[in-house]
Amino acid sequence: MKVSTAIITAAGRTQRKLPLQTLTDREGQSRTVLRLFIDELRDAGIEKIGVIIRPGDHDVYEEAAGDLSETLTFIEQTEPLGYGHAVHCGRDFTAGEAFLLMVSDHLFVSDDPEKNCAQQLVEVAEARECAISTVQATHESKLPYFGTVAGKLFEGRPGLYEIEKVLEKPTPTVAEQELMVPGLKLGHYLCFFGMHVLTPGIMDLLGQGVATASEQNPLQLSPAIAELASRERSLALELKGRRYDLERQFGLLMGQFAVALDGKHRDELLEGIIELLAQARR
Amino acid sequence: MKVSTAIITAAGRTQRKLPLQTLTDREGQSRTVLRLFIDELRDAGIEKIGVIIRPGDHDVYEEAAGDLSETLTFIEQTEPLGYGHAVHCGRDFTAGEAFLLMVSDHLFVSDDPEKNCAQQLVEVAEARECAISTVQATHESKLPYFGTVAGKLFEGRPGLYEIEKVLEKPTPTVAEQELMVPGLKLGHYLCFFGMHVLTPGIMDLLGQGVATASEQNPLQLSPAIAELASRERSLALELKGRRYDLERQFGLLMGQFAVALDGKHRDELLEGIIELLAQARR
Repeated sequence: MKVSTAIITAAGRTQRKLPLQTLTDREGQSRTVLRLFIDELRDAGIEKIGVIIRPGDHDVYEEAAGDLSETLTFIEQTEPLGYGHAVHCGRDFTAGEAFLLMVSDHLFVSDDPEKNCAQQLVEVAEARECAISTVQATHESKLPYFGTVAGKLFEGRPGLYEIEKVLEKPTPTVAEQELMVPGLKLGHYLCFFGMHVLTPGIMDLLGQGVATASEQNPLQLSPAIAELASRERSLALELKGRRYDLERQFGLLMGQFAVALDGKHRDELLEGIIELLAQARR
Repeated sequence: MKVSTAIITAAGRTQRKLPLQTLTDREGQSRTVLRLFIDELRDAGIEKIGVIIRPGDHDVYEEAAGDLSETLTFIEQTEPLGYGHAVHCGRDFTAGEAFLLMVSDHLFVSDDPEKNCAQQLVEVAEARECAISTVQATHESKLPYFGTVAGKLFEGRPGLYEIEKVLEKPTPTVAEQELMVPGLKLGHYLCFFGMHVLTPGIMDLLGQGVATASEQNPLQLSPAIAELASRERSLALELKGRRYDLERQFGLLMGQFAVALDGKHRDELLEGIIELLAQARR
């Protein structure tokens, strides 16, 4: 199995502006968030990238991609019918192949000096030849933000699980009853990290729900991933990395800070921060 | 003299995206940089704001202004003929009145707990009834970025100077010979802070240079301010505040950080920064 196609979902009402924001990358260059995503995916061997956008956003996204815009395919989600529906908009684009799916409201910072997050994922997916969702052990206080999985260690390999259950934004009570995973810190669960490799089967499953999706009853992705796991081998992988939610308060600041601490201008940045702290009132 | 009109210049090739970026404001709300500018100006009593934009940017600027877009007048600078030319594009809009001029590539953070930077400027301009350029004592290493003024204390009031000379981006040698101001720290000069109150006379002076301006020979603002100072009283005011250049490396990060340190979520932000430092590799 070769993973050479990716989908970035960027049509969400409150998330669609995030990929258009500008940050300073690890090398010290000014880059849009979209461009950071493209660079991450290309470094992981992805050749075709489809970006799911809201109608009317084509021009600003094209500009945000800069000289790499020609490597992108823009696909409009014409109605806001849910995350699963947005993914399904990429069905023709993925053309029956396995694909990497990436959210656009988080920044990913790898803790593996050799491989970025997408590389870590693609490497395991190509070796295991199956669907893989990246996950991160996450404190129960953050369950309202994430899809959460339960599973058991796969082939005894630490950090790799066979998915047995998926619930979207569970309550702590439900999580405690249904999603406990042995070996995690107390009160922690395996929450989605924001990157998956999915097989074409997911498009078939999502296709069954498209007709009945509505704004009031949006089509989610998590139930389709749960159903996929009951039909074919689906794994969950704990990456060596961190994700930063750009949409939360100071999200862009924290994401930028995390990227910069990982980059070549780390020391200048820290000096600047100290100087600024010294200048600030009180 | 009442200052109720303002111009924001946002048509510069490399600066035009900065006002469209999103930050978290002092109250913890997500806001575009443009919106922070509008809020600053309205709090200073400005009623009419003209934004000088590049052709084609109208829609994205309107969206960035949100529900305050109707309070703005967008004015296109159809050719990139210099900063002075951009200001002159607002001639009809300012209609013979004094106006506040604000750059759009810096964020301003006041160190006066009672008044923001624009308020401090407007207050002095209305009391003195003349043109006033805000300045900041700036180290000579940063002279390549700023217009720089020389002058003598006005009425003996600390921080208020009568402008005698203005040079755009002087070399340290020229500055030492022509722009030394008694009382400043060694190697420091009075550089423009990015906000002025200007009288209608500036539009007449700029008008004289518009016909010969070109992309190769752009019309600057500093010579016109120098000429204005030779014709009518023009002051330079050291504000209680700091400016953050959004265009430099990590500029948005530093600007956001400065605004946040000044805001109600300061402690959460500092906790987040410490947590992030602890998570980062090496």
